[in-house]
Amino acid sequence: MQIFRDISSLQLSLNKLILEQKTIGLVPTMGALHNGHAALLEASLLENDITVCSIFVNPTQFNNDEDLNNYPRTYEEDIKFLESNGCDIVFSPSIHEMYPEPPRLKFNFGKLEQSMEGKFRPGHFNGVAIVVSKLFNIVNPKRSYFGQKDLQQFRIIKELVRNLAFNTELRQVPIKRDESGLAMSSRNKRLSSEGLNLAVKLNQSLMAVKKSISDNQDFEKTKILLVGDLALEGIQVEYLEYVNADSLESVKNNSTNNSVALCIAATVDGVRLIDNIIFELRE
Amino acid sequence: MQIFRDISSLQLSLNKLILEQKTIGLVPTMGALHNGHAALLEASLLENDITVCSIFVNPTQFNNDEDLNNYPRTYEEDIKFLESNGCDIVFSPSIHEMYPEPPRLKFNFGKLEQSMEGKFRPGHFNGVAIVVSKLFNIVNPKRSYFGQKDLQQFRIIKELVRNLAFNTELRQVPIKRDESGLAMSSRNKRLSSEGLNLAVKLNQSLMAVKKSISDNQDFEKTKILLVGDLALEGIQVEYLEYVNADSLESVKNNSTNNSVALCIAATVDGVRLIDNIIFELRE
Repeated sequence: MQIFRDISSLQLSLNKLILEQKTIGLVPTMGALHNGHAALLEASLLENDITVCSIFVNPTQFNNDEDLNNYPRTYEEDIKFLESNGCDIVFSPSIHEMYPEPPRLKFNFGKLEQSMEGKFRPGHFNGVAIVVSKLFNIVNPKRSYFGQKDLQQFRIIKELVRNLAFNTELRQVPIKRDESGLAMSSRNKRLSSEGLNLAVKLNQSLMAVKKSISDNQDFEKTKILLVGDLALEGIQVEYLEYVNADSLESVKNNSTNNSVALCIAATVDGVRLIDNIIFELRE
Repeated sequence: MQIFRDISSLQLSLNKLILEQKTIGLVPTMGALHNGHAALLEASLLENDITVCSIFVNPTQFNNDEDLNNYPRTYEEDIKFLESNGCDIVFSPSIHEMYPEPPRLKFNFGKLEQSMEGKFRPGHFNGVAIVVSKLFNIVNPKRSYFGQKDLQQFRIIKELVRNLAFNTELRQVPIKRDESGLAMSSRNKRLSSEGLNLAVKLNQSLMAVKKSISDNQDFEKTKILLVGDLALEGIQVEYLEYVNADSLESVKNNSTNNSVALCIAATVDGVRLIDNIIFELRE
């Protein structure tokens, strides 16, 4: 496994691989790797000759310095993890390498970023779009892998790729969960054992809401009760949304033929977590 | 010379050239080609193995339907012009090929787009940034050529390339002028012979302002007199700006060490024209 810290030596190496007609898969990460990332790597290893994993805690996508400072960083373990998971190339640039100057342009994705993460983390998707554009331009991957946990992020990146004609196929890899059902996340490393027990309720809540939708219960009523119950247990829900899985617009009645998603963001034990489930409505 | 109308067949051809390690130069145009474009082609032919010229009247960069409809289109002549100027590949996509769906993301370049063209043509640079990003992603050129006449556009594209790490070297090619000093422009085709005579005064005005700056006259006073004189001749000045050639910020006094530029936009004979000159201030 090769490790690159600077763009030019990475590109020198990738250019050789392109001349050898190797296909390249990109797995962009912020490190603190877990089995969710392993699923991304596995998907990339299966369909590409070379898998590049980037590790970069991207400052421009954090709307909050405290969150940026507290974001778990486990570089040594990450490198071992990637090695044992078959990664070919690691790209772990410094902040200065990625941002020799602060980016001046800003992206706006309109409606797609006006709800959920976009609403509660102003500027977040601008930072995501900038860093992902840079990674696409630096690595020029044939395929790129993102986790379903960041559902809105994936939808935004899909728009970015379509609108600007980036030459990469996007793959959304299903959420990995531990035995309890908790969605794997780097931020879970910040939870106490009590927090871990509480966090399980996010997924349980989504499953309960899904059931109530199937039973034709009103979503808004179900939500109000549930958010109240979670608050009593010490979980502060930031949002709980029932959306069209493609447009991310609120589902107003159950007559849509598209996939739908239930998305939640909540603070558990002082840590902000997100989760979602995607499913089909059957009449 | 090969001509492609669709992205996938162009890319198939370009991918072969990349495997042969050919360098690719891109000259993006909106057609209605003239000797200004020939200078761009010449610059590209000199330093690349293959020169790709795109012809696409990009609707998203027009803030005004009338301007879009009146934009000169001379496709047959353009093809002959490119053939005789040594172009290797023409890419002339349909609107649907470039925009199968309306782009939803928007670019904002902050201060860089708050003056001059950005101020008077709202949305213009968003459309430019989208189409140029697409062309970079489709053609993947080692070098890209733009004319100095669109000075602010070049500065915006420089920011785009830096901020998003596009893998292309930008070249700004000096303005080509006819014998009278008129900057060559596709829009000149819309001028009557009387309009052509009047249009010469744009460049003459810039030279006069440059002289008055060298003589330590106050720019704002010179501007007011000149704009009045031009109005009497039937030329409506939209803006006349004295700016730092890099930041595009107004030069408030003559003590800067950077290159400076004088930029003008005016309506002559019903046609909106722009021109600029870049020069060094010597103390």
